[in-house]
Amino acid sequence: MSRHLCVYLEFLTEAHKEQIRQAATDTGFVPHIFTLDQFEEAKACLQDCEVLYAHSPELLRTAPASLKWYCCSFAGVDPYCKDPTLFANPDCLMTNSNVYGVTIAEHVVMVTLMLLRRMPEYIEIVRNHGWSNQLAVRSIRDNEFTILGTGNIGVNVAERLRGMGAARILGLSRSGKPHPAFDQVRPISDLDTVLPQTRILIMGLPSTPETFHILNRERIALLPADAYVINVGRGTAIEQKPLIEALNSGKLAGAALDVMDPEPLPKDDPLWDARNIILTPHVSGNMTLGYTCDKNVELFCADLRNYAAGRPLAGLVDRSRGY
Amino acid sequence: MSRHLCVYLEFLTEAHKEQIRQAATDTGFVPHIFTLDQFEEAKACLQDCEVLYAHSPELLRTAPASLKWYCCSFAGVDPYCKDPTLFANPDCLMTNSNVYGVTIAEHVVMVTLMLLRRMPEYIEIVRNHGWSNQLAVRSIRDNEFTILGTGNIGVNVAERLRGMGAARILGLSRSGKPHPAFDQVRPISDLDTVLPQTRILIMGLPSTPETFHILNRERIALLPADAYVINVGRGTAIEQKPLIEALNSGKLAGAALDVMDPEPLPKDDPLWDARNIILTPHVSGNMTLGYTCDKNVELFCADLRNYAAGRPLAGLVDRSRGY
Repeated sequence: MSRHLCVYLEFLTEAHKEQIRQAATDTGFVPHIFTLDQFEEAKACLQDCEVLYAHSPELLRTAPASLKWYCCSFAGVDPYCKDPTLFANPDCLMTNSNVYGVTIAEHVVMVTLMLLRRMPEYIEIVRNHGWSNQLAVRSIRDNEFTILGTGNIGVNVAERLRGMGAARILGLSRSGKPHPAFDQVRPISDLDTVLPQTRILIMGLPSTPETFHILNRERIALLPADAYVINVGRGTAIEQKPLIEALNSGKLAGAALDVMDPEPLPKDDPLWDARNIILTPHVSGNMTLGYTCDKNVELFCADLRNYAAGRPLAGLVDRSRGY
Repeated sequence: MSRHLCVYLEFLTEAHKEQIRQAATDTGFVPHIFTLDQFEEAKACLQDCEVLYAHSPELLRTAPASLKWYCCSFAGVDPYCKDPTLFANPDCLMTNSNVYGVTIAEHVVMVTLMLLRRMPEYIEIVRNHGWSNQLAVRSIRDNEFTILGTGNIGVNVAERLRGMGAARILGLSRSGKPHPAFDQVRPISDLDTVLPQTRILIMGLPSTPETFHILNRERIALLPADAYVINVGRGTAIEQKPLIEALNSGKLAGAALDVMDPEPLPKDDPLWDARNIILTPHVSGNMTLGYTCDKNVELFCADLRNYAAGRPLAGLVDRSRGY
């Protein structure tokens, strides 16, 4: 009996499809590749498939109990972990695609510099055709950074800050396990001790029960008034109302949020017009980067070979832990 | 007879002043330090001084023929080279302070990422509280860059792009002399050959007769339609009218200019509202960076020791060449 593999993705080039076909042939799978306008066809095909490579809770919900592995093309898999009814097979393996570190890190470097160099204010000056250039700026060089989350995002950010001469990069993770990209990694339980000394806080955390409102009102108040907050993980990690209050009252120097809660942000949300804020509509990990797409397919193909050979999957998610 | 040294600067901290006093004492000079609100006092004192450390054509013009060395605290010394009447002593040495590479390079990385990640468009979307996130972005990683000028700015930019994974960095300089920060350095006379292959052009040139309108109408037309132009050198290096036309007609993807011609840019100049443009009011080299100020004083003190010992000055400017 043939083993079948369903792919339901938009970003694939012909070269990517050929890579997937090759990996499937090598491992004894028959590949079926669909684009996002072929939902019904993908759904019909999926009934005989053992593997699904996609990012679609809707399609996953239609999969039979015989689905053994779901490879999610995104990094953030919280929608899948929160809703166990999505999986007809409770033992279905799930992998995610931790390939967004490069593009997200470039976004972080950009907004960090925009905050340090006072771009929210300069953008307003220039919009009014004004010429005023005396705002005090700060630099990445010789500055200190605190990065919440030492995964693929945190490491890529740390490497780039280091390359630009950062003086000290502190990582915080659940385990506090050392990593060469950071001067030091401390457990997240040290957060309250770390925040009063933090002037640039970069957050790249997955959405889990533990990270929900991890930067809450009390912790926002622990940050110095000249601190900046950058979030590219999940919007739920920050309690938004006190963040807005701290920005507008000058108790916080600025923030750059690529993620918020909810998304899309409602038209009348006060976050849009908070003082010294740089908002972007969840674009930091955009798939439009050729490198990200290539790496995504590469990781899936490598894990397909692992799967067929009975080896552990590199991208395996602990669904109970949430990442 | 005592030798006197006049300092007329705003940015000095107490520690900087102490450094200058120490270097003066060590070399047999009496230091006189003034802030910018003490013009008359500085002018009176200057009549007996051999050395002036400042950035003030107005003050320099009042110096006697006995002034032997003018240390300019800025990097761009074109106002001094263009106007020989500023120097009562035609043989007066002039040094400049090439210490702006770090802060300017951080500015270049910021605006490069802003262009590649479509920030002019996203800023407009967010300003209208909109949520659209499908614009194609590009990355520094795996991208190719052409840097016009391989001095302090060009080298600092190249090092940072390299640290972020740039695939190829081509430098262009008067001599074409190789430098380890670049994959290749070619003479500026190759510019017409290089432009059709350039998608990100970074310009950090001094203002000289040779660099005036070096990016003119014909050369702007040589750039591909998806190319970006970044200028942090001098505004006169670009012919602005055809640049505006190329941006507005889509023949150029975008531009980021920290320098323009003239400055301040007139309120009604069409450059303000060109398509996909990021303008900043000449802030990329701002002195507000602690590092820049420290380095500035450090270089002056080192050159004061060189001067007193009769050694060549590290920051010496060829006034006929213009940098």
